[in-house]
Amino acid sequence: MQTSGDGSFGTLPQIAADIAARIRANRPAVHCITNTVAQNFTANMVLAIGATPSMTLSVDEIASFVVSSDALLVNLGTFDPERRATIDIAVSTAAEGHKPWVLDPVFIERSPLRAVLAHDWAGRKPAVIRLNRAEFRVLSGKDASPETLAAYADKYATVIALSGATDLVVDAKRRIMIGNGHPMMAQVTAMGCAISAITAACLAVESDPVTASAAALLMAGVAGEIAAEQAHGPGSFAVVILDALSNLDAAGLQHRAKVM
Amino acid sequence: MQTSGDGSFGTLPQIAADIAARIRANRPAVHCITNTVAQNFTANMVLAIGATPSMTLSVDEIASFVVSSDALLVNLGTFDPERRATIDIAVSTAAEGHKPWVLDPVFIERSPLRAVLAHDWAGRKPAVIRLNRAEFRVLSGKDASPETLAAYADKYATVIALSGATDLVVDAKRRIMIGNGHPMMAQVTAMGCAISAITAACLAVESDPVTASAAALLMAGVAGEIAAEQAHGPGSFAVVILDALSNLDAAGLQHRAKVM
Amino acid sequence: MQTSGDGSFGTLPQIAADIAARIRANRPAVHCITNTVAQNFTANMVLAIGATPSMTLSVDEIASFVVSSDALLVNLGTFDPERRATIDIAVSTAAEGHKPWVLDPVFIERSPLRAVLAHDWAGRKPAVIRLNRAEFRVLSGKDASPETLAAYADKYATVIALSGATDLVVDAKRRIMIGNGHPMMAQVTAMGCAISAITAACLAVESDPVTASAAALLMAGVAGEIAAEQAHGPGSFAVVILDALSNLDAAGLQHRAKVM
Repeated sequence: MQTSGDGSFGTLPQIAADIAARIRANRPAVHCITNTVAQNFTANMVLAIGATPSMTLSVDEIASFVVSSDALLVNLGTFDPERRATIDIAVSTAAEGHKPWVLDPVFIERSPLRAVLAHDWAGRKPAVIRLNRAEFRVLSGKDASPETLAAYADKYATVIALSGATDLVVDAKRRIMIGNGHPMMAQVTAMGCAISAITAACLAVESDPVTASAAALLMAGVAGEIAAEQAHGPGSFAVVILDALSNLDAAGLQHRAKVM
Repeated sequence: MQTSGDGSFGTLPQIAADIAARIRANRPAVHCITNTVAQNFTANMVLAIGATPSMTLSVDEIASFVVSSDALLVNLGTFDPERRATIDIAVSTAAEGHKPWVLDPVFIERSPLRAVLAHDWAGRKPAVIRLNRAEFRVLSGKDASPETLAAYADKYATVIALSGATDLVVDAKRRIMIGNGHPMMAQVTAMGCAISAITAACLAVESDPVTASAAALLMAGVAGEIAAEQAHGPGSFAVVILDALSNLDAAGLQHRAKVM
Repeated sequence: MQTSGDGSFGTLPQIAADIAARIRANRPAVHCITNTVAQNFTANMVLAIGATPSMTLSVDEIASFVVSSDALLVNLGTFDPERRATIDIAVSTAAEGHKPWVLDPVFIERSPLRAVLAHDWAGRKPAVIRLNRAEFRVLSGKDASPETLAAYADKYATVIALSGATDLVVDAKRRIMIGNGHPMMAQVTAMGCAISAITAACLAVESDPVTASAAALLMAGVAGEIAAEQAHGPGSFAVVILDALSNLDAAGLQHRAKVM
């Protein structure tokens, strides 16, 4: 991917528009293991970007669903023993089928058990780990900086997508900063979980996880900015971001992108 | 019911308006066993049509809830062992109490286990089975046609409500086609599940399952068309379909109905 | 608290505005044990008032989450064995940490098991029990009146917040009536559950449970009235009440309050 502006492989907004077009054309199946708080909004965000979500958490069914999916999201919110067994099977099935998966270690700073399990799963080659600064600190034992993120990504052969006022996508060698988004995104529950699911949808059609993650964060951030211009509060914001994501086009991405 | 146009027993739009009025007057209790993705939207759709939803999935409580309900929805999404036991008790309790129930065998084409269980439950006399073509193929082993649907309905003493661009309601002898609806309905998660719950609400006040199913599909399809005229994308569509369903009146049903 | 109008300690609208400001400034953590139907809307209502929700139901994690929370909601909807164990741990942990908690005994009139357990938990010193008339009748064996409510509150050292056309907040000695709200609030699923969560958010920053409960009911009722003026049905109502709650200010509370 080329984001330095010379355009030889296209800029991130162009690439993101192309990824969105591929998602809409191919309607990839994205299986989402996520908490019950987030399931409905996540499914609607995945539909809005043009992919097909499935959400079962059943131990008995998860392998069938992952085998017939194009990408997997593993979000740790509202944890329980059956969910843990489900995640283990899902991650193994994804590995066997060479399907990309995203780990979203929600709230590991609030639960020691969750932190231990997140650490284990982070070592099982997720294509992308999407988290915030507090979660990275618990997962890695270090404060997030370009260097610590790159070292972690290198050690675990993964990509880190760090959310914040400016999002940062890092692998061992590359680094992309995305300055899009709006503070109102933090006032809607499951917004982060849903963006992780959009990352999985992008991975379903784009093999480079740095590109897929950066595209997902750009799409979500731009949709959030459009939504903030139309919304009167967090209720209407959660509605119009779905409309904005569904109506996202290359011109809007190009016009609004803040990529470094 | 009379849908041939001579009006002797009323046309489907008139009957649907009457059923909606009975639901609003009697506020029947509809117990919904449905997946956690669909629960909130389903409950709000049931409330919008004027009925009272309950949603518990607990093995220990399901019998109490079904006994005090007027109709039951059994949706197979996001399956787990406890849910299966809950469904078994719910279906038995409904049978003992002569309460109508709707089977919605979601995603059985993605899970062999789910297909086996759906086949078993389909034989336990649901008033209506609501499904799409892929699900019918797995359930019956045949492609959906008016003949295969009628044969299946006859064999299992049930009514098939097949969703699609045109919905089809079939029992052993009767057939109604409903051409209402909008493609945006497929972009909102749980829309199908919620329409199955509305079917259960109609069954709570209308003893003929062909009439109840056709009325439910007409109400939902017309509400979807009204919503599509006001919505700017799938987010606002999911909001305004609730408004439209709540405000549905006889004139709107009559004016928009495409029934054959 | 002073609600008799002499203003010596401020009137309820002033106090409610102050509580809302404290919530927005301190962003208290509110852990919500609630049914899966209600989780998403409840989390968004808690965010809209300015607090930080968490929603895990896991037996293994609940103690960690309650320890790091400022208040707890225990809602009995969609019950199951694991949820019961989770509630037991949560209530014990809250007691040890002197954290206020709200009991919302949803649907106990539909399930004898739930009624038995609700009775037990009501005896474990919730700061507030929020329920409707049917639920109070099952819990106390008596019809709700100012006298029976006060007697119950006295016996169990709690505060009763009775919902209805006029809400009533009662402890052994005090009584506040709040006439705000709108009938459309009953057409949105989980509205009551969410208001109980807002009560928990108020308890996180206000130590007097009568004041906290009355403030929560006033905030929710006023937000509901504002939403009803803008909504076209229950779908848009559920959206704009979130906007209204987020934008609630002292002038709106003062202008609209119906407190006796």
